[in-house]
Amino acid sequence: MADCIFCKIVAGEIPCQKLGENKDFVCFLDIEPRNEGHALIVPKRHFKDLMEFPPELDKGYFAFVQQMARKIIPAVGAAGFNLGINNGRAAGQLVFHQHTHLIPRFAGDGLSSWPHKPQTKEQLERTRQKILAQKQ
Amino acid sequence: MADCIFCKIVAGEIPCQKLGENKDFVCFLDIEPRNEGHALIVPKRHFKDLMEFPPELDKGYFAFVQQMARKIIPAVGAAGFNLGINNGRAAGQLVFHQHTHLIPRFAGDGLSSWPHKPQTKEQLERTRQKILAQKQ
Repeated sequence: MADCIFCKIVAGEIPCQKLGENKDFVCFLDIEPRNEGHALIVPKRHFKDLMEFPPELDKGYFAFVQQMARKIIPAVGAAGFNLGINNGRAAGQLVFHQHTHLIPRFAGDGLSSWPHKPQTKEQLERTRQKILAQKQ
Repeated sequence: MADCIFCKIVAGEIPCQKLGENKDFVCFLDIEPRNEGHALIVPKRHFKDLMEFPPELDKGYFAFVQQMARKIIPAVGAAGFNLGINNGRAAGQLVFHQHTHLIPRFAGDGLSSWPHKPQTKEQLERTRQKILAQKQ
């Protein structure tokens, strides 16, 4: 798509620190890393977010993530990783060409979990009923 | 697997606030929500983390996530969502039966992105070379 930075990276019109690719996805380093080795997994086809993820791309997605993680995690000496997809501006999505963050994690790296917003069992059940009642 | 809380939920031995299921996955509310509607997508088969995610489960994973999100997000009035998988204790994984967090997001909900740890282009390139040199 014109004016899409990730389409331009996929097409080789903008350089990136590429780590690997297969027929459907490319993986390169995020230029604003949260930790060393922070990588993006980007589909070669343009679609704006996870809600538009085409079913035919499912197959092979996690195998590619695993393949990249098996190289990235030991190379940077990490102890684990987070995989994250932000869907929509309110969720922190900045580039509207769908992508997955793979963020290596180190013990004591200071990246903290979000705080709980406690709900009682009754509140959880009310939430559940709203969701079950929602027409798709 | 014996003593796995998610296997017991899948088997119906421990109750949960179930939102939906298909042949491979079940979706229920997290009892320690980060936001209203925070749900978990849990494979019915036991495997400990994303690195053990079996290739045959790829197909249909995102379709199920989309199906759940289409109900959860409007039901709680959210503007977007984060999808997250924590792989390993250092990444915040607490239950070692692989699962995905689906966290609804609201404008101004106070859940902030992790800070950048800036790297120069030269540092990014050194990281890349380490990763490319890593034997799988």
